Amino acid sequence: MHKINLAEKLALFSTHWDPKIVAELNGQHVKLVKFRGEFVWHHHEHEDELFLVVHGSFDMHFRDRVVPLREGEMLVVPRGVEHRPVADAEVSVLLFEPAATLNTGSAGGDKTIARPDWI
Amino acid sequence: MHKINLAEKLALFSTHWDPKIVAELNGQHVKLVKFRGEFVWHHHEHEDELFLVVHGSFDMHFRDRVVPLREGEMLVVPRGVEHRPVADAEVSVLLFEPAATLNTGSAGGDKTIARPDWI
Repeated sequence: MHKINLAEKLALFSTHWDPKIVAELNGQHVKLVKFRGEFVWHHHEHEDELFLVVHGSFDMHFRDRVVPLREGEMLVVPRGVEHRPVADAEVSVLLFEPAATLNTGSAGGDKTIARPDWI
Repeated sequence: MHKINLAEKLALFSTHWDPKIVAELNGQHVKLVKFRGEFVWHHHEHEDELFLVVHGSFDMHFRDRVVPLREGEMLVVPRGVEHRPVADAEVSVLLFEPAATLNTGSAGGDKTIARPDWI
């Protein structure tokens, strides 16, 4: 039981689309991730997913619209809803989602991180 | 499915020890709460609880030590562990916890918010 400093954790990695686990509670993971560029379209069959912008901004694309998100803003993407994060510049995001969640969800492919690292 | 701006939500209330629900996912609630002063000692029998400081600072007291938490820092308090938040000045905190979690946990008493409002 120790405190977690988000800035210190974010300084530990520089990769993109590569979520790192920083905490676990009630079967959920808290992850930190950096986005830059366009991710793959995907959905999660069984998991709702929360995105909270820690630093920077990005756009969450849905099939019918785009939701821009800035620092201090968050969005819940319900299970089953196709989405694709797009970041013009690097953005740091906190994720809250079930421990079983795969970053690419239904899509798979070479961006899949099967077992995210703890940092 | 709409974005949630933490600063805008925090501007909607000024009460202390009175958590407000801002999102629900996977049976968990995301809440915002303002602390000032000393809360009651309590634990949660079945729920782990995450505290993320959005603005300000506070001390989480445990029976054997104190963990100071500042903006951008978070702490998971596992189920069963007695704790008491203490804030010298007002602090705004984001909570992640199961939807069933009561703010006073095992302790009950007049600070209990049986059904937190959504904002």
